Amino acid sequence: MKLNIALLAGDGIGPEVINEAVKVSDAIAKKFNHEITWTAALTGACAIDAVGVPYPDETHEICMAADAVLFGAIGHPKYDNDPTATVRPEQGLLLMRKKLGLFANVRPTFTFPSLIDNSPLKRERIEGTDLVFLRELTGGIYFGEKGRRDGGETAFDNCVYTRAEVQRLAKKGFELAMTRSKKLCCVDKANVLETSRLWRETVQVMEKDYPEVTVSYEFVDAVAMRLVQWPNSYDVLITENLFGDILTDEASVISGSMGLMPSASVGEHTSLYEPIHGSYPQATGLNIANPLATVLSAAMMFEDAFGLTEEAAAIRAVVNKSLEQGIVTEDLVVKGATAYKTSDVGDWLVANL
Amino acid sequence: MKLNIALLAGDGIGPEVINEAVKVSDAIAKKFNHEITWTAALTGACAIDAVGVPYPDETHEICMAADAVLFGAIGHPKYDNDPTATVRPEQGLLLMRKKLGLFANVRPTFTFPSLIDNSPLKRERIEGTDLVFLRELTGGIYFGEKGRRDGGETAFDNCVYTRAEVQRLAKKGFELAMTRSKKLCCVDKANVLETSRLWRETVQVMEKDYPEVTVSYEFVDAVAMRLVQWPNSYDVLITENLFGDILTDEASVISGSMGLMPSASVGEHTSLYEPIHGSYPQATGLNIANPLATVLSAAMMFEDAFGLTEEAAAIRAVVNKSLEQGIVTEDLVVKGATAYKTSDVGDWLVANL
Ligand SMILES: CC(C)[C@H](C(=O)O)[C@@H](O)C(=O)O
Ligand SMILES: CC(C)[C@H](C(=O)O)[C@@H](O)C(=O)O
Repeated sequence: MKLNIALLAGDGIGPEVINEAVKVSDAIAKKFNHEITWTAALTGACAIDAVGVPYPDETHEICMAADAVLFGAIGHPKYDNDPTATVRPEQGLLLMRKKLGLFANVRPTFTFPSLIDNSPLKRERIEGTDLVFLRELTGGIYFGEKGRRDGGETAFDNCVYTRAEVQRLAKKGFELAMTRSKKLCCVDKANVLETSRLWRETVQVMEKDYPEVTVSYEFVDAVAMRLVQWPNSYDVLITENLFGDILTDEASVISGSMGLMPSASVGEHTSLYEPIHGSYPQATGLNIANPLATVLSAAMMFEDAFGLTEEAAAIRAVVNKSLEQGIVTEDLVVKGATAYKTSDVGDWLVANL
Repeated sequence: MKLNIALLAGDGIGPEVINEAVKVSDAIAKKFNHEITWTAALTGACAIDAVGVPYPDETHEICMAADAVLFGAIGHPKYDNDPTATVRPEQGLLLMRKKLGLFANVRPTFTFPSLIDNSPLKRERIEGTDLVFLRELTGGIYFGEKGRRDGGETAFDNCVYTRAEVQRLAKKGFELAMTRSKKLCCVDKANVLETSRLWRETVQVMEKDYPEVTVSYEFVDAVAMRLVQWPNSYDVLITENLFGDILTDEASVISGSMGLMPSASVGEHTSLYEPIHGSYPQATGLNIANPLATVLSAAMMFEDAFGLTEEAAAIRAVVNKSLEQGIVTEDLVVKGATAYKTSDVGDWLVANL
């Protein structure tokens, strides 16, 4: 199979972790007789530095022409202290989501038996946790009209959703639930927000098309609690953009394996795979960043974008093996053991595939 | 001192826990020579049942005439499955906040040494946690224009903040920080929302009036993570209405003492004190609900509404004593020990004041 993949390494540790994911992907391709063409493109702070905008048109064209996009991380501290600056790496991210139509952000949270004690939660709370958030990614308050009135004294942000947007996301949620434990939780704030009432009533109507799926409706504040109390009581959760931003990040830390969590953003034109961790500027260039989340994002890509299940399974298996054998970067190393470098972990994965 | 207090017991276990708080308050008043006049009024589902609206005008007048309001909980399952119904208990809550001008919700999260092992978090993560959220309570997306367009196919909610609203809340935050560890965290989403940028720039300007306070600015998604990872790294946090709704609930479960957490909502005309737990319908009438959060809310009332610090300290001391001696309701009882009834706990507190 020919795989045409756009490669957006981004900022900070992005290029280093992407590098290892490319190594592993190439090794998998060789083993299974695929041919990958990688096309690199700029995004984030490095794109601002090079061409003045965080998501250049050329990058967009490369993404549109590709079968899938593999993404590192973006963000640079020089933009952090002034979130009001007009040109910022994050704007590139939002523009990219919108222009590529990446409406569904798929964020799994699961545990690795060997890492469970890294969790801030007690073992009995976190054991067996295996949930997936589907976060709506191109609508809501992120993209509604926003601005100032009264000479700057009043600010506003509009949150807007159409029924079609809700249906599109919820459909993915029902379908995902059907492949898992057939439990779907719709997270909203229907006791306060009109957009949430639209979400809830839309999902309620769709329920009858999926009679096997048990749907629960929970308020976002209640979910923020239960995620910490009983994370393993959830399976598939669907929610709007801003709630998803907050809850997926909350969920990511409970597993104790935040540095390993992959994600996908799927849409009309293409799909994008990225680790959920950030650009970790302090570690840039030190060859110490953990590449596993990016490697696991590549596994998601093989499976979801190309239907290559065996290839994905092979990647996941070797990642598990590396964890079991302690071939890990310093963030995961047990006291007294030696930490491997980013590139050493990648080499080990390739050698042990 | 004459204390004129409106008493809104509300629904579910509300009347039972309020009853114990009244007992304890009366005992304290007697001991310290104060005279409390309680004026009961209806709110929530019981008000809908009695007069058709969840926050009757008469109740509002009673609250306005009082020096402070002591509140139980509202909500009834018969309204839970239809959040779109026009008359709902929660609407009473929002109306009450707005009409009483209760713009600042004060939500402490702290730990009780004897209860620390109830936390879903590991002991070393939660020990020493003592933080306070100040949540803006009468603005933002809760109260902005909301509705439908396109024949119901599009829904919208408007989030609006004025600089004056931000200043009013932030001022309380700075003042509170001055009485504590002088650390203030402004929680926003300034990388995406215009209202957040107004929050951030307003707080940045106010910083120079409080040179001793160290202010940090963090994004809401990052705070949702760090609250689980390192809750004791926070002290005072200020935030807007919806973020506050989500984060204060998240914070409430980390302590392991959710059933004990009091809160205050302070405003222009009066202030209101309530346990953060809900109306717990399943337990209604069983005399098993934990009254301590309401008793501790009464302590907050003595201290904050009336400046009666010694009285508040006496209540807190006896609550601590009851915990140490295991005079607790079934939610807190250690395996094998007997659970006390709601009213027994209240009686014990009165007897041991
Ligand atoms: C960087 C920021 C704009 C972004 C978001 O809020 O969506 C990030 O937090 C994320 O979740 O991908
Ligand atoms: C019941 C609901 C409207 C309310 C809110 O969202 O403010 C509640 O969750 C709270 O935090 O007091």
